[in-house]
Amino acid sequence: MPLLVMKFGGTSVADLERIRNAAQKVQREVERGFDIIVIVSAMSGRTNELVGWVEQTSPLFDAREYDAVVSSGENVTAGLMALTLQEMGVPARSWQGWQVPINTTDAHSAARFVEIPRDNIDRKFQEGFKVAVVAGFQGIGPDGRITTLGRGGSDTTAVAFAAAFGAERCDIYTDVDGIYTTDPRITSKARKLEKIAFEEMLELASLGAKVLQTRSVELAMRYKVRLRVLSSFEDTDENSGTLVCDEDEIMESKVVNGVAYSREEAKITLVTVEDRPGISAAIFAPLADAGVNVDMIVQNISEKDVGDRPGSVTDMTFSVPVNQVERAKRAMEEARASGHISYDELIVDTETAKVSVVGIGMRSHTGVAARMFKALADENINIKVIATSEIKISVLIDRKYMELAVQALHDAFGLEAA
Amino acid sequence: MPLLVMKFGGTSVADLERIRNAAQKVQREVERGFDIIVIVSAMSGRTNELVGWVEQTSPLFDAREYDAVVSSGENVTAGLMALTLQEMGVPARSWQGWQVPINTTDAHSAARFVEIPRDNIDRKFQEGFKVAVVAGFQGIGPDGRITTLGRGGSDTTAVAFAAAFGAERCDIYTDVDGIYTTDPRITSKARKLEKIAFEEMLELASLGAKVLQTRSVELAMRYKVRLRVLSSFEDTDENSGTLVCDEDEIMESKVVNGVAYSREEAKITLVTVEDRPGISAAIFAPLADAGVNVDMIVQNISEKDVGDRPGSVTDMTFSVPVNQVERAKRAMEEARASGHISYDELIVDTETAKVSVVGIGMRSHTGVAARMFKALADENINIKVIATSEIKISVLIDRKYMELAVQALHDAFGLEAA
Repeated sequence: MPLLVMKFGGTSVADLERIRNAAQKVQREVERGFDIIVIVSAMSGRTNELVGWVEQTSPLFDAREYDAVVSSGENVTAGLMALTLQEMGVPARSWQGWQVPINTTDAHSAARFVEIPRDNIDRKFQEGFKVAVVAGFQGIGPDGRITTLGRGGSDTTAVAFAAAFGAERCDIYTDVDGIYTTDPRITSKARKLEKIAFEEMLELASLGAKVLQTRSVELAMRYKVRLRVLSSFEDTDENSGTLVCDEDEIMESKVVNGVAYSREEAKITLVTVEDRPGISAAIFAPLADAGVNVDMIVQNISEKDVGDRPGSVTDMTFSVPVNQVERAKRAMEEARASGHISYDELIVDTETAKVSVVGIGMRSHTGVAARMFKALADENINIKVIATSEIKISVLIDRKYMELAVQALHDAFGLEAA
Repeated sequence: MPLLVMKFGGTSVADLERIRNAAQKVQREVERGFDIIVIVSAMSGRTNELVGWVEQTSPLFDAREYDAVVSSGENVTAGLMALTLQEMGVPARSWQGWQVPINTTDAHSAARFVEIPRDNIDRKFQEGFKVAVVAGFQGIGPDGRITTLGRGGSDTTAVAFAAAFGAERCDIYTDVDGIYTTDPRITSKARKLEKIAFEEMLELASLGAKVLQTRSVELAMRYKVRLRVLSSFEDTDENSGTLVCDEDEIMESKVVNGVAYSREEAKITLVTVEDRPGISAAIFAPLADAGVNVDMIVQNISEKDVGDRPGSVTDMTFSVPVNQVERAKRAMEEARASGHISYDELIVDTETAKVSVVGIGMRSHTGVAARMFKALADENINIKVIATSEIKISVLIDRKYMELAVQALHDAFGLEAA
């Protein structure tokens, strides 16, 4: 029997009516001939309530107790979903993590999967059950205690089950109807993608697209699990949503498939830094220690006559989230005060944003960067920092031009047309 | 190390502050040198919320899913209690039913204990943990699924742990400060008992005293677990509350230790029933089938000249809760229509109440019934039905005299004085 994994997030199971609505989608897939593993999150708001209680009780909480408390939300939804399906005449039962068992590491609150044995659930399918409703986000550690996977863990649970059971597909039901070429709030020309490659989705997720957690996309890519993102709140069929899949499955891909942005970026420049081997480590180690997420890094040569001569100087520019600027400044000032680095001046620009174009087609096409820069130049948008990866080009620009830049790039790469 | 079981009900752990308050009581016992097993209920209101969701989802619910959903409330409290104790510097961890494991029968929603192995918790005590916080009301069935014990199951869990671990005592913290000679709302002369025998407590519980569930008292009596009932909301010490214990531990007992009542009783009389062997079964089997809880039963001889002669007649009177009168009438009418029984008339009196006196001293003292009847006669209260057991005498009277009867009996048996 072909098997499908269907995952419903917190807003999709927020109350009994929405659980019923989700159950109807499950029933439809059963009628199409699938065995189904349903992964459910806690009813929306529940996890936050439980986390709040734990944090109020114990600011430096024992993560094992945190996991024991917080995992209860998913258990409630799993039971209610199983009951709802039974009411509809669909043979279903709920599974808590330890019952499967979902074996994880003992890194409580941030556990990783070790193994998901199929025996118990397979036996139930053989007995005639059509649906296994599994509480997402949780597992059992080597010490027999409950673990959780950290936020976004339900998506990851879904992908892990799809991999373990060789599922046809892993459908992630959420509150958006798919992955778009860019944010539809910025341009109405944004188009829903029918398919997108894992690598592209990964870049978009790391750029702040909230639809899928980076970790679940990584896992899907590693095990070649076809992921589909679609809406809980619309009628859906086999062609709904966006399929995240191996690039081999995407016949003809555009050079660029998406334009992403990150609004709250700040640019920090250290002026006249001593240019010597090890200087990058001397700058970025204290930033890492301070928990600053450095994104783009550019080193400018600021003296013409440098060569290999020691004693030459350079400027170092990097971007950080706006709310980490103070932390970054303090880390740099302390490093200077302790003599580990030297610089003349630290310049902060908190009025910048990052805009990126993403596409696996870039690998085989040249001139993407030039086309991007020309589109921005045509709008008189100045580029402050550039960073590239194999399938992505990002630029830092003045924040006030961010929307304009997204629209210009969406047009320049013809993303409106399918 | 001597071991104590402490149980906190739903109102005693209703919010984080009350959990902290309960944890302080635990800490005090740890300081006195005890290892502690704490049994917790769900935060008050939570279980009802979960039950409501299940019932709304599926009126004829799968009890296994009901148990999976409803048991989550206790897991939350157990984790929060463990965290609270850790914050106070008391080494504690939470245990869910399946982790102990609390092995039960597979009668979901009404499971019974099979075995509670000590190994896992004992090992933790040996490792230096002082407190095991156990989620009450739940267990694990032979099929590896979560079971619950039915309402009042947390008290029963506490007693079962006290028996399994040979506890010094099982302290039940609740919202009253002990067991009283009668309801203090009816007479201010009601006095808190220092000790009460298991058998007396059992009679009082079955008579509607809400403090302890009948089942937990039965279990305590069977395993000779000393039970103490005391208040969560007051400062308590070794002498607080009421100890429910073996009668051997009670040096000098009064003849009567308590006056109980049940307000909503109805009396049903079948007039001119054929008096033949098997007639009682013919009457009460249909009532049992209809789920009617028959309490007191009296058979009057209504013809003087009966002897063993077949064909003689009698009247049959019994009491039922007021809200079961209609069901009882229907069952009787159907039994008559189908020819299984015959009677001339069915008389219902819904304006009655039951008043009982309870005391193990009755076993060795005569004249208790006479003293009771005289006290009632002195107040001109007519007795409609009498029922006796070894340590209890109950009478059915007009409801309007109920409070008066309780006060008169409390006085007559000198219960005000210790």
